Amino acid sequence: MDLEHGDEEVASVEKAFQGKEVPRWEKQVTLRAMLVSVVLAVLFTFIVMKLNLTTGIIPSLNISAGLLGFFFVKIWTNLLSKSGMLIQPFTRQENTVIQTCIVASSGIAFSGGFGSYIFGMSSEIAKQSPEANTKLDIKDPSLGWMIGFALVVSFLGLFSVVPLRKIMIIDFKLTYPSGTATAHLINSFHTADGAKLAKKQVRLLGKFFSFSFLWGFFQWFYTASDGCGFKEFPTFGLEAYQNKFFFDFSTTYVGVGMICPYIINISLLVGGIISWGIMWPLINARKGDWYSAELGSSSLHGLQGYKVFIAIAMILGDGLYNFVKVLGRTILGLYNQFCKRNLAGPHSPLSYDDECRTEMFLKDQIPFWFAIIGYVGIAIVSIIVVPYIFHQLKWYYILVIYIIAPALAFCNAYGCGLTDWSLASTYGKLAIFTIGAWAGASDGGVIAGLAACGVMMNIVSTASDLMQDFKTGYLTLASPRSMFISQIFGTAMGCIISPCVFWLFYKAFGNLGIPGSAYPAPYALVYRNMAILGVDGFSALPNYCLTLCCVFFIAAIVINLIRDFVGEKWAKFIPVPMAMAIPFYIGTYFAIDMCVGSLILFIWRLVDKVNADTFGSAVASGLICGDGIWTLPSSFLALAGVKPPICMKFLSRKVNAKVDGFLGS
Amino acid sequence: MDLEHGDEEVASVEKAFQGKEVPRWEKQVTLRAMLVSVVLAVLFTFIVMKLNLTTGIIPSLNISAGLLGFFFVKIWTNLLSKSGMLIQPFTRQENTVIQTCIVASSGIAFSGGFGSYIFGMSSEIAKQSPEANTKLDIKDPSLGWMIGFALVVSFLGLFSVVPLRKIMIIDFKLTYPSGTATAHLINSFHTADGAKLAKKQVRLLGKFFSFSFLWGFFQWFYTASDGCGFKEFPTFGLEAYQNKFFFDFSTTYVGVGMICPYIINISLLVGGIISWGIMWPLINARKGDWYSAELGSSSLHGLQGYKVFIAIAMILGDGLYNFVKVLGRTILGLYNQFCKRNLAGPHSPLSYDDECRTEMFLKDQIPFWFAIIGYVGIAIVSIIVVPYIFHQLKWYYILVIYIIAPALAFCNAYGCGLTDWSLASTYGKLAIFTIGAWAGASDGGVIAGLAACGVMMNIVSTASDLMQDFKTGYLTLASPRSMFISQIFGTAMGCIISPCVFWLFYKAFGNLGIPGSAYPAPYALVYRNMAILGVDGFSALPNYCLTLCCVFFIAAIVINLIRDFVGEKWAKFIPVPMAMAIPFYIGTYFAIDMCVGSLILFIWRLVDKVNADTFGSAVASGLICGDGIWTLPSSFLALAGVKPPICMKFLSRKVNAKVDGFLGS
Repeated sequence: MDLEHGDEEVASVEKAFQGKEVPRWEKQVTLRAMLVSVVLAVLFTFIVMKLNLTTGIIPSLNISAGLLGFFFVKIWTNLLSKSGMLIQPFTRQENTVIQTCIVASSGIAFSGGFGSYIFGMSSEIAKQSPEANTKLDIKDPSLGWMIGFALVVSFLGLFSVVPLRKIMIIDFKLTYPSGTATAHLINSFHTADGAKLAKKQVRLLGKFFSFSFLWGFFQWFYTASDGCGFKEFPTFGLEAYQNKFFFDFSTTYVGVGMICPYIINISLLVGGIISWGIMWPLINARKGDWYSAELGSSSLHGLQGYKVFIAIAMILGDGLYNFVKVLGRTILGLYNQFCKRNLAGPHSPLSYDDECRTEMFLKDQIPFWFAIIGYVGIAIVSIIVVPYIFHQLKWYYILVIYIIAPALAFCNAYGCGLTDWSLASTYGKLAIFTIGAWAGASDGGVIAGLAACGVMMNIVSTASDLMQDFKTGYLTLASPRSMFISQIFGTAMGCIISPCVFWLFYKAFGNLGIPGSAYPAPYALVYRNMAILGVDGFSALPNYCLTLCCVFFIAAIVINLIRDFVGEKWAKFIPVPMAMAIPFYIGTYFAIDMCVGSLILFIWRLVDKVNADTFGSAVASGLICGDGIWTLPSSFLALAGVKPPICMKFLSRKVNAKVDGFLGS
Repeated sequence: MDLEHGDEEVASVEKAFQGKEVPRWEKQVTLRAMLVSVVLAVLFTFIVMKLNLTTGIIPSLNISAGLLGFFFVKIWTNLLSKSGMLIQPFTRQENTVIQTCIVASSGIAFSGGFGSYIFGMSSEIAKQSPEANTKLDIKDPSLGWMIGFALVVSFLGLFSVVPLRKIMIIDFKLTYPSGTATAHLINSFHTADGAKLAKKQVRLLGKFFSFSFLWGFFQWFYTASDGCGFKEFPTFGLEAYQNKFFFDFSTTYVGVGMICPYIINISLLVGGIISWGIMWPLINARKGDWYSAELGSSSLHGLQGYKVFIAIAMILGDGLYNFVKVLGRTILGLYNQFCKRNLAGPHSPLSYDDECRTEMFLKDQIPFWFAIIGYVGIAIVSIIVVPYIFHQLKWYYILVIYIIAPALAFCNAYGCGLTDWSLASTYGKLAIFTIGAWAGASDGGVIAGLAACGVMMNIVSTASDLMQDFKTGYLTLASPRSMFISQIFGTAMGCIISPCVFWLFYKAFGNLGIPGSAYPAPYALVYRNMAILGVDGFSALPNYCLTLCCVFFIAAIVINLIRDFVGEKWAKFIPVPMAMAIPFYIGTYFAIDMCVGSLILFIWRLVDKVNADTFGSAVASGLICGDGIWTLPSSFLALAGVKPPICMKFLSRKVNAKVDGFLGS
């Protein structure tokens, strides 16, 4: 079964499952499923949090979640069936419920903004900006308000789109590529051949998990302080290292590179070469001319300012283009849907698969009034509670957001169904600028903007996640009701787990958010500066920075236009501006890791295409998970004050001679 | 065909080659064979020299020499045959000639003593001993006298045993395991299946050669000075590193470990644990009590003395035991030969293979008078020339050696035929003690002893090599005459190449022979101290050192006795004392490399025994050759004054904090 092109079905899937009873929806949400979900949700939250705080690039972890969920419950049921105590067999519906719950929970780690808007409010990040340093513009993280905020804003998205599921899934027949792929994966696990294959994949995942975990452990010993260890390895020489070109031996990003499409990895590398290879050295040569030579290296009035604002310009350019494009396609799609409906809709007969699926999907209804009451009720609570947390965010700002949000949530869920591209962070940025400008600088517009971003992003993001999962549920005959409950449970879990995990990182690694450290949290500074930009305008930028920003803003739009214009055949050779912008600020090292991942996969596919396609994502998941989980013990070690014993240091020959002289004397 | 048990032939080999004409002996020694030999001889001399100067452990390189010789001539003949210009096809006899020539030439790199007696005369080594530091006891290396010395002493061995070849090979039917294995390998190459397999092996060898070479190149960048780079990697922590327990990322010794039997590698590790893990820390705790605390770390009156002399004691104990044992078996064997001859010798009919081989072997004779004239002529030249080089070595010492030597050469060749164990270095040590004591301290006994060691070792070593090659020639139908010429040519080549390669190392790497450096040349100090011991007696040893030496001398003999007593089944679990002694002086790091090699092979054989047995030695050879050849460009870089740009340094957390403070200020 070709998982990547899951929509090109030839034979009937449901015929293969004929005779297997679909359990009632209450039986799909089992206790064992919830227990497995909790364990895996913690695991994935760690991974996503680590990714958030290192580069902000988060690959799709749906496949791993499905695979590991299957693996754990299968072990459980196998053990029980051997002891003769198994009452209920493991079904694909239950598998879908687990996968949904995990994704919903770890999704909060991203949309909760711990690497972006929430952390952007902190004094650590505020210190790096020259503006908006008053008490009004800072809100330091604290476990209490983070959990409270997450709880009051995260459920609205679910209620806002749940009534539209029939239109999206059955009437519009949107593809939702990720959801479809996950469904095919889960379906395949529950066939005899598929179970065997899944076992092999899990074994391989386990091997690479162990390798990656042990490698992380081994590396730890050599990182006695900043500037030590494998992550500082000047693989291409010291000069390249100064310009952030090096391979940092991170198995996480090698794995991420194996999952991301080639063009994304190449885009990152191209972006890194343009910025760190060409532009920054050139701008640096203008020190004292374009900007004062006396500024510290992290001052936004100096070189750092160019890095951050040009990256923001490019991200905004790409975001705007895609917003317009997806909105256009949404409107066009809706228009076509209604035309098509009148033309061919009811005439084409349903296939056997579609018949089964539609029947199941429509069986367990969620009443419309339930969604309305849920949405309005939570909105009222939210409007009352949120201004208590952020007194800069007035209650009427939130009311306005909640009036507009359902429409945007629908747009995003629809666009995501067409393109697999969730624009949640773009909608969030929109909120930053509009609410920030409305509040104004003197009334704490920075915090208001960032908080509004959180409110907006959570609604829009969970809405599209929910619809993806409904698609998965549709294709695996899972009940919408069990899916919804699982999503609610997962979201609630995420609202507790994610802030706690972030809190662990925040307490364990003292230097969160500092550029050049292990956890620079690049998007925190980017988001904060967007908020400042929205409130203050462009007055504070260094010389020519605005000009360059405009150039890159327009370039992002033009590159996107070209990509869409030349057609898919050539588009895969043209870099993606959004991906190009990320290394502008944090450097090229992770792009090199990811390209190494691409290279491994490329060679593997050359040598043995079948195995590479079957096992590639298992290997990648193993690499990502192992290293990600190592951060759990490593943060406990840091909290306990256990420090690594050795520093692996890289010195130039000249400096080394000095150091040898110093140590000798 | 099972290469390791080549003597268990079932089918007739020669029948497979029926119809293939055996070329006349002049046609076996072709120009192309000699050219290939020159290229490969340089390659192998580099490898052997590197091994000489790092640890002194040299695995058998016969297999690689045969394989690469086959590969190069095969390419040559294939190219010519495609262009229609091939006059003479490539035969296994020619292959044998090449292999013989390479082994003879690179053998000089070992028996020439550049890592032992020759370098032991230098002032670099003399500085490390407290005794015998006068001008009379030092002779610094110089290209001129080294080539001269090699030329006058290296050919005698050949002439001394050449008349005995019929007795050894045909009458006594000695096995010569290495020679037999090489012959089977060469025979297998020249069958159709064998050629295909050889091609695969060469491809794998090439891959690992490239990997190993590039890895060496990559490592180079990080070794700006002493104490930098991967070879200083404290894999098991800094304390273990201080006690020389670490994995030094040397592909050479991983490869060597894959070739050496498991028990040798385990012996090295056990020796390392006993010495560096237990004894040296204990003795170090007696500092100020057993020896003066003010001594430098390299003083032989201090801890270093225990290391060197206990190692010597163990090597001598093992050597003595094996000398007695092999001599006993030689005498017993000779006695049996004459009995057997009278009993069953002529009665058993010869097999077809043996008939062919005997016929060929007896066809081209080397006259007895030729050998006698050669031996006497060269001996006279040698007796005149050598005292000019070493005026401490009087002409009558040499005369005595040359009178006794043929008997010892015969013993060694015979013993080697039975056990595959050449005792050349033991005979050399014998010469050190006897001639050294005869000359006496006041007359430069140290240099006299070391030079006598060289004279003796060369004769005895080349004698056993020649007989091994005659066995190979016998089994591949190569003419004894072509073998002899090839051996002469190879030896002559070796006498030029080896001193030049040593000279390159000596000039390029300034710190040859310094303990703890990249090229400590451990045996140079060991040999020099044996000579001092022979001349001065035990007076200069630190407290209790003599007692410990006696314990280990006896232990070596007892362990050997036990090994022989318990039978082969259990012997493979009992360490070899000779191997145990090597890490006593230089540390355990290379033993860990070699155990990693063993482990790789062990796992490979578990997973896929057939492939591991077929390709294991090709992989190992690739690893050894690649890293060995990297020393060629690296020494040129050193000569040209190009220094690596980066230092990869390992500091404890405390020292690192100090260094950061120093660099920050």
